Amino acid sequence: MSENVGTTLDVAVFGAGRIGRIHAANLARASGVRLKYVIDVNQAAAAALAAQHGAQVADIDVALGDASIGATMICSSTDTHSELILKSAAAGKHIFCEKPVDLTLDRARECAQAVERAGVVAMIGFQRRYDPTFAALKARLDAGEIGTPEMLVVTSRDPGAPPVEYIRRSGGIFKDMLIHDFDIFRWILDDEADTVHATGSCLSDPAIAEAGDIDSTAVTIRTKRGRLCQINTARRAAYGYDQRFEILGSDGMLQAGNVKPTEVVAWSKSAVSQDVPEAFFLERYRAAYALEMAHFHDAVTKGAPVRTTVADGLKALELAEAAALSWREERVVKLGE
Amino acid sequence: MSENVGTTLDVAVFGAGRIGRIHAANLARASGVRLKYVIDVNQAAAAALAAQHGAQVADIDVALGDASIGATMICSSTDTHSELILKSAAAGKHIFCEKPVDLTLDRARECAQAVERAGVVAMIGFQRRYDPTFAALKARLDAGEIGTPEMLVVTSRDPGAPPVEYIRRSGGIFKDMLIHDFDIFRWILDDEADTVHATGSCLSDPAIAEAGDIDSTAVTIRTKRGRLCQINTARRAAYGYDQRFEILGSDGMLQAGNVKPTEVVAWSKSAVSQDVPEAFFLERYRAAYALEMAHFHDAVTKGAPVRTTVADGLKALELAEAAALSWREERVVKLGE
Amino acid sequence: MSENVGTTLDVAVFGAGRIGRIHAANLARASGVRLKYVIDVNQAAAAALAAQHGAQVADIDVALGDASIGATMICSSTDTHSELILKSAAAGKHIFCEKPVDLTLDRARECAQAVERAGVVAMIGFQRRYDPTFAALKARLDAGEIGTPEMLVVTSRDPGAPPVEYIRRSGGIFKDMLIHDFDIFRWILDDEADTVHATGSCLSDPAIAEAGDIDSTAVTIRTKRGRLCQINTARRAAYGYDQRFEILGSDGMLQAGNVKPTEVVAWSKSAVSQDVPEAFFLERYRAAYALEMAHFHDAVTKGAPVRTTVADGLKALELAEAAALSWREERVVKLGE
Amino acid sequence: MSENVGTTLDVAVFGAGRIGRIHAANLARASGVRLKYVIDVNQAAAAALAAQHGAQVADIDVALGDASIGATMICSSTDTHSELILKSAAAGKHIFCEKPVDLTLDRARECAQAVERAGVVAMIGFQRRYDPTFAALKARLDAGEIGTPEMLVVTSRDPGAPPVEYIRRSGGIFKDMLIHDFDIFRWILDDEADTVHATGSCLSDPAIAEAGDIDSTAVTIRTKRGRLCQINTARRAAYGYDQRFEILGSDGMLQAGNVKPTEVVAWSKSAVSQDVPEAFFLERYRAAYALEMAHFHDAVTKGAPVRTTVADGLKALELAEAAALSWREERVVKLGE
Repeated sequence: MSENVGTTLDVAVFGAGRIGRIHAANLARASGVRLKYVIDVNQAAAAALAAQHGAQVADIDVALGDASIGATMICSSTDTHSELILKSAAAGKHIFCEKPVDLTLDRARECAQAVERAGVVAMIGFQRRYDPTFAALKARLDAGEIGTPEMLVVTSRDPGAPPVEYIRRSGGIFKDMLIHDFDIFRWILDDEADTVHATGSCLSDPAIAEAGDIDSTAVTIRTKRGRLCQINTARRAAYGYDQRFEILGSDGMLQAGNVKPTEVVAWSKSAVSQDVPEAFFLERYRAAYALEMAHFHDAVTKGAPVRTTVADGLKALELAEAAALSWREERVVKLGE
Repeated sequence: MSENVGTTLDVAVFGAGRIGRIHAANLARASGVRLKYVIDVNQAAAAALAAQHGAQVADIDVALGDASIGATMICSSTDTHSELILKSAAAGKHIFCEKPVDLTLDRARECAQAVERAGVVAMIGFQRRYDPTFAALKARLDAGEIGTPEMLVVTSRDPGAPPVEYIRRSGGIFKDMLIHDFDIFRWILDDEADTVHATGSCLSDPAIAEAGDIDSTAVTIRTKRGRLCQINTARRAAYGYDQRFEILGSDGMLQAGNVKPTEVVAWSKSAVSQDVPEAFFLERYRAAYALEMAHFHDAVTKGAPVRTTVADGLKALELAEAAALSWREERVVKLGE
Repeated sequence: MSENVGTTLDVAVFGAGRIGRIHAANLARASGVRLKYVIDVNQAAAAALAAQHGAQVADIDVALGDASIGATMICSSTDTHSELILKSAAAGKHIFCEKPVDLTLDRARECAQAVERAGVVAMIGFQRRYDPTFAALKARLDAGEIGTPEMLVVTSRDPGAPPVEYIRRSGGIFKDMLIHDFDIFRWILDDEADTVHATGSCLSDPAIAEAGDIDSTAVTIRTKRGRLCQINTARRAAYGYDQRFEILGSDGMLQAGNVKPTEVVAWSKSAVSQDVPEAFFLERYRAAYALEMAHFHDAVTKGAPVRTTVADGLKALELAEAAALSWREERVVKLGE
Repeated sequence: MSENVGTTLDVAVFGAGRIGRIHAANLARASGVRLKYVIDVNQAAAAALAAQHGAQVADIDVALGDASIGATMICSSTDTHSELILKSAAAGKHIFCEKPVDLTLDRARECAQAVERAGVVAMIGFQRRYDPTFAALKARLDAGEIGTPEMLVVTSRDPGAPPVEYIRRSGGIFKDMLIHDFDIFRWILDDEADTVHATGSCLSDPAIAEAGDIDSTAVTIRTKRGRLCQINTARRAAYGYDQRFEILGSDGMLQAGNVKPTEVVAWSKSAVSQDVPEAFFLERYRAAYALEMAHFHDAVTKGAPVRTTVADGLKALELAEAAALSWREERVVKLGE
């Protein structure tokens, strides 16, 4: 494990795309953090992000070979995640990695073992757990406000489908989009899946079906304790990014609603109207991304227990695999069957 | 006082217009009530309403001269209210009268004295006090939920101005429209006005100004105990009938919101929308009108204390006079000055 | 078919329980309707309801043998529905029957054929379709406001489980409770089920499990056109009767929310609060029940096409059977398999 | 005017209290800004803020005598505002000054003249105009969404009264608290006051009355064009900081609602509850403060026209004076009388 981790932290950022820039800016805000290297196959993007933070453009080996680097932030494309996790762990660097760990379970398990052996901090980017609304709901649930949780309904809809090229390399909707919802399920119900049923359709764009994928899903999970969860997702909600869930407990219900840009209410001849939700994940989870990085910083510099681990990433991936199997074979799948 | 008041009640209805028809139908629903006479200068309207309830068209003297009549319902035009109150009281009939008692204070005081002397039940149609939302708010206020009431804000807007002919005979906006709001003020703050300030403008239709009236008002009342009330009214709200108030207390606030026809929420590309409020008083106060008549029936047949008395009508009228004076003379008016 | 159907209608009411009394009062409000007979094994209940409407207590044969009777209202216990439908049809009476038609598909099909042969009006009590909120949503959906419907999420929760004796005779949660939700599904998505998956648990009361039933379900339906529907139900929601659904379309979403008793909003030190929903179906669907009877009256007296037919009852029952099978065998069930 | 204003900006901050720290942090975020001096009679506070930004503690003369300083931020106590404005203007520095300009009109006018003569950018801290909700409402109003504005209702309540020592030096509630509401009035109605009426009471704490002030006010303004405005304020709202307004126009209404910390909705046996509003101005106007500083930076470095000028500060102060006079003399006051 890197020796120079204390209250200051030198960091290498892999991936200078949209999410890499956000994470970099958030982490850099913590006192004592220095972004030292930016690594990206897109050299221009790497250079721009490096310039913004006074960092250098580098390659993987240089970054991981520098003993002063305490942590890596893996924000590159999904197919590079596991390699960078394994190399970072081998180099004794603490790791923040965007979801998913990998598109295959075997490889993801290998990563889990590697970080455990290396004894490094390893955190997966399930940013929703850090969202103020979701986190407040979870705290109230844990405080017993609605008794025992019994049934969870998750609504998770994107404002529009990504390009079909993206979908082709995404691993499918269950791994690409529902991976977050599966994590929400485990976190909120505090239980593991016993069986999963998934169905779906391609309703928005035939090109998605041609790519072997679907754009709308309906998933049901029954947990080992008999709790129930229903997840409905769509790649396209005309009104924007829809991120809600509700948990019914023995003594009441808690709902997490969408976040609006403003609190303006307009009364016209025909309707009383409010804003549509925040446009997409960058806006909706702005606060969550900042709190997520603050947590990573705490985990690395103060030893705070990581709240979204590689094991969580693995479990969500197992659910995604099971759901995909259920959808393909049109049957109920038992986890671990 | 009429001898045949018991659990059955024969009634004479004065006025077969919109509000007369509603009150008649509501009262007729009570068991033991018989609408016996309908009186209206518009004979066709009288005949239609009478037919609907198996009643007879009659004139004032016949109706009041019939000893079997236990109660009169005065739903005719404002300029007939006081005469019908005085005659009904003289004949020993119980009285329900629409607001206002009269457009002049002297005449209204005469009515108050007459009904007191006659010992009859006399109730004024301040239906808002019977509205389920308003009444629930008042009950919670009285139960101490928000401590001591301190400040009341009343929003009271019509969907559109009436014809200017109506406005000319209306007694002006303060007596015609705000009379209800002044009653809400006294009821909710449970206090009497010390000073009143009113201002206003004619913003929707110049014809209203030509008729010597205004269509928008801003009224402030300070009570004897120092509590504050602000009332804003408009003859025209493009989005419909707007009937809200909120009361700030030492421990919190209670708001009474508008009532919507349905609970549909529509999420479109541009907005998240709900229904505009119920269109006008007939829809908005449908439940209130029914409960009001049930209360009148209880007052007459079971001796329940009347909740909206002629004295309440007088007090609201005094406030309307003071507000009109304040507006005309652009000064603060002390009640009873 | 009964000859005396015109603008007047003599009616026989089977079942003087809670729902029978509501339907009787609503139908009696229509002009020209006379409740002539009340039939109930509970003679006291029959007598009370008869007295209220000036009707007579009778037995089945007398009621159906009276040629003046134009329609029967079947509000008795579920196990009597099919017999009374068959007998009413045979006697040429128009029929209103509470859901479900019967607990077995064969018997329900027999009823469907009988009413068709008899040419009588036959309406099933799926009152939700008449609810002002649900009906307004459906009208806006049909008008194309959100484009093509794609995904429906139904939340349907009772405020508390009925006595286990009731549950034992109920036919199970799918036939007893979800029958309404299956009808909502067909009505809103305007499509038929291709496959259904159901799972569930007994989470509130072990006695329900001992009776062979569950109290919480999660159902997913995929339609012939690939549309998706998720239904979540619970016998016990601590906060009351929860009746919501939302339909995602290609251009937006429409939600039907709960109905509150009042529009009071309370701001305290700790929360901004509104009323919990209307307590249970009698309160929640008060308006729906009235509109339902008005529709039945129109169907019988004016030939208006029946909006909730025996065929609809059959389809909902098929879904309930399929869902129960899916739950018991833990597999996806194809309709008509 | 200071010569070194370009894309980089050296700044002196007067006042290292709560609001000074916020403005300093927000301004420092802009690229090219350097906090060079912090000046405060509380040396410890000055040192702490200086340390945080790599600035130096200085006194007024040193700071204003340094030709490299392009702008001053006046966040010190109200009684120092005008002196620092005058000195900053004399030194050719651009000025950001917290409200109010001064507690006396003469002195405030002197400041307005001084900044105009000096030709410096001078901006007053009416942060509410920069609030995302308020600014969005204003933009929609200006775009004509509700036609011509006619009536404004402002609700402005603090979560609790400040210490009476603060109140004694505050200039009274109209200058201290309503100054913001008077600015909102002018900004939203886009009109100037013709007459003002104010009344008020001391309802929360007798010590406030002993200090010659009140804690609850009700103000009515009629504009030169006949538009109406009602403002209700209270020093203590048990449920927190309440900052709402609504503007009725000829074609509809726009409301600006409170901002909640989270979007959690809790359904319990007794209520459906949401969060109380953000606690106080630091939380409620967090985004507004950041946008305000970004605007100041744009004004200084890019010549963007200042949106909240010293003239705006003067106008709000005139209204505060008029309102205080109206309250004291219990009469309607004509502006400029």
